[in-house]
Amino acid sequence: VIHAVEILTIGDELLLGFTIDTNGAHIARALAPIGIAIARRTSVGDDPDQIRAAVSEALDRTGAVITTGGLGPTTDDRTKESIAALFGRELILDEGHLAWMRDRWRKRFDRDLPEVNRRQALIPDGARKLENRHGSAPGIWLEDDRGRWVAMLPGVPREMRGMLADELLPMLQARAPAGAVIESRTLRTTGVAESRLGEQIERGEPTPDGVDVAYLPSVAGVDIRLTTRGRSPRESAELLDRAAHVIGVAVGDVIYAEGNADLAAVLLDRCRERSLTIAVAESCTGGLLGARLTAISGSSDVVLGGVVAYGNSVKVDLLGIPPATIEANGAVSEPVVRAMAEGARAKTGATLGLSITGVAGPGGGTDEKPVGTVWIAVSQRGSTECSRLQLWGDRDEIRSRAAQAVMELARRLVVQGG
Amino acid sequence: VIHAVEILTIGDELLLGFTIDTNGAHIARALAPIGIAIARRTSVGDDPDQIRAAVSEALDRTGAVITTGGLGPTTDDRTKESIAALFGRELILDEGHLAWMRDRWRKRFDRDLPEVNRRQALIPDGARKLENRHGSAPGIWLEDDRGRWVAMLPGVPREMRGMLADELLPMLQARAPAGAVIESRTLRTTGVAESRLGEQIERGEPTPDGVDVAYLPSVAGVDIRLTTRGRSPRESAELLDRAAHVIGVAVGDVIYAEGNADLAAVLLDRCRERSLTIAVAESCTGGLLGARLTAISGSSDVVLGGVVAYGNSVKVDLLGIPPATIEANGAVSEPVVRAMAEGARAKTGATLGLSITGVAGPGGGTDEKPVGTVWIAVSQRGSTECSRLQLWGDRDEIRSRAAQAVMELARRLVVQGG
Repeated sequence: VIHAVEILTIGDELLLGFTIDTNGAHIARALAPIGIAIARRTSVGDDPDQIRAAVSEALDRTGAVITTGGLGPTTDDRTKESIAALFGRELILDEGHLAWMRDRWRKRFDRDLPEVNRRQALIPDGARKLENRHGSAPGIWLEDDRGRWVAMLPGVPREMRGMLADELLPMLQARAPAGAVIESRTLRTTGVAESRLGEQIERGEPTPDGVDVAYLPSVAGVDIRLTTRGRSPRESAELLDRAAHVIGVAVGDVIYAEGNADLAAVLLDRCRERSLTIAVAESCTGGLLGARLTAISGSSDVVLGGVVAYGNSVKVDLLGIPPATIEANGAVSEPVVRAMAEGARAKTGATLGLSITGVAGPGGGTDEKPVGTVWIAVSQRGSTECSRLQLWGDRDEIRSRAAQAVMELARRLVVQGG
Repeated sequence: VIHAVEILTIGDELLLGFTIDTNGAHIARALAPIGIAIARRTSVGDDPDQIRAAVSEALDRTGAVITTGGLGPTTDDRTKESIAALFGRELILDEGHLAWMRDRWRKRFDRDLPEVNRRQALIPDGARKLENRHGSAPGIWLEDDRGRWVAMLPGVPREMRGMLADELLPMLQARAPAGAVIESRTLRTTGVAESRLGEQIERGEPTPDGVDVAYLPSVAGVDIRLTTRGRSPRESAELLDRAAHVIGVAVGDVIYAEGNADLAAVLLDRCRERSLTIAVAESCTGGLLGARLTAISGSSDVVLGGVVAYGNSVKVDLLGIPPATIEANGAVSEPVVRAMAEGARAKTGATLGLSITGVAGPGGGTDEKPVGTVWIAVSQRGSTECSRLQLWGDRDEIRSRAAQAVMELARRLVVQGG
């Protein structure tokens, strides 16, 4: 039975800092639901001595290691040979895999297999091959007679994820501890500070014992993560339900979703249920709100489009805002954000108009309207709700928070509207 | 003299996979220019035994460790006490820091310092405090009588980055090896496959010895990274210049920048030099192109705005495209992308109109226009250039590649136009 594994990510680029390692996090999230924890994560370069040392130490500590990277065709790629040497195994040419690769090259790339790629068909003696749906390097499962093992996966995220799901997870699931799962649930909030949420939850009914509560702030808002460990699935589900209920009562309707749903997807669902359509009018976000909404596949039945009204001339020409309104109030003002939201609806025929205008910085701030001053508005038939925000962070963060804030305002108005 | 350090990132969230660790990569990139390499990276949970074991092993291997995380106010945060215990040092209350924190809470949050935050003023005996410009937890520099050291930085990226730049880098620079720097230069390309670039470079004049050439593909394109190690700054500069020249000749004008410049920033610079303005018309990207362009601070002197023409009604109503053109050719077609680019110019008065329409998927593909089929166009006075692309990847990737492709088309046309 496997309770914990170590993850070893291999590649010079990880030590040079040119690549952000997302593989380790992905593997951790994939193993948690089957009750396997990550004991440690390590990254080393493409160096046989470093690889061998790191694998050997991890086997001594934990006995179970997943590696990513270093399975490619070039001389940089040393993972397979280094770990085979550690296990005292020779590399043997897998004729079947070689034939498959030759065929793949001919069919996909219309050329002969490059000589250099032959190395990818070498398999350590006694190893089990893990199929690669997205690439030419097979993964390797190598186990010694004491049951200690290393699973070698490719470094390319798409290939690694496919192989993990298709091949490694089913193998590990068969050896995972029965019932001792780590279960977690995430309550997503936006627009309320972590400290404020914490105070509200502390003042409310106590959360049940056995549930860890963690706050994960990001530009999207604060996620409240509830975790149970080593409980049966049923017990976990009950505890998490109870905790989610208690916290929901304490913080109110700022929870826009459970799980990892994007606020954009939640807003689109609420609109779809009510047959509403959306148009946008964006100044400082320059298209980011539209990009967020249309990133959701199937958004076209709700989102009509809108106007990127970055310059004032576009606010006038495409949204029909009177120049005098801009002159009298400035582009970052309640009258302008209101006219933008109403203009978006009027020009497209959408039910809802969402608008944003603000000072994203780093330049352009004044005493009266410092960097981070953002007006948002949501226009519906008969009413337009506007709100002034003071957002923090750099230009990217302010723009992201502004897009998030107007989607949240729209979500609440739509839900309240019934 | 310090040649290499290890990085230890601390936090349960790293092992659970809820957080992608960007701190390690940032530190690596910051240390490379002063000639300090990263020997290994490790992540452990918020557990005193794990922290102590990992630091102790790293000190034995490398003698120099930078940690991030676990300096916060809550009981989760165990870094300082664990490492102080390993060094056999007591924690001592720093009255000056406590007073500063009290003052900060009163001024910034208008409240008394929470009792829990007092822990952040505890400093290991004999340690040096590292100032935190962005938060309340000081960093810690702890060194033993054999010159082995640990530098503890906060886990919040903004705080970590500030402290690294302000405090730790100057200390390390004073101990860095003279002249033995890792220098690298990046040539950015887009729209050409890695294998094709590799073939062109192999067929060209050989790149100078002592320069490593690596290819880093991403949705933005392929970066060609040139690296020298252990050379004097002057020698490195000469080698890198020569390599960049040779590669530039081999691959031609697909290199849009050196360094880490964003294609959007490069395009804006080229337009600014020529007093050109840009308007966008976006269908499948839904605002992403506008968001990319306006993410660059100071973009408002070039970018006027444009239209998110996601639905066909918006293409007709806001861009003036005849419904018959859409009906006859479909929304993903040369006549429509051309009319979008020309409409963007006509409706805003911009010099350049950039447009995108395509099938971003996962649904909506047909035999004739499969997922990934994207038309892009750039309209200038007197001519409109259109191009059909077949892009790969998921919805996000296809949208990103489409925005990148139309910016690159515009850049080339602008540069050719003189």
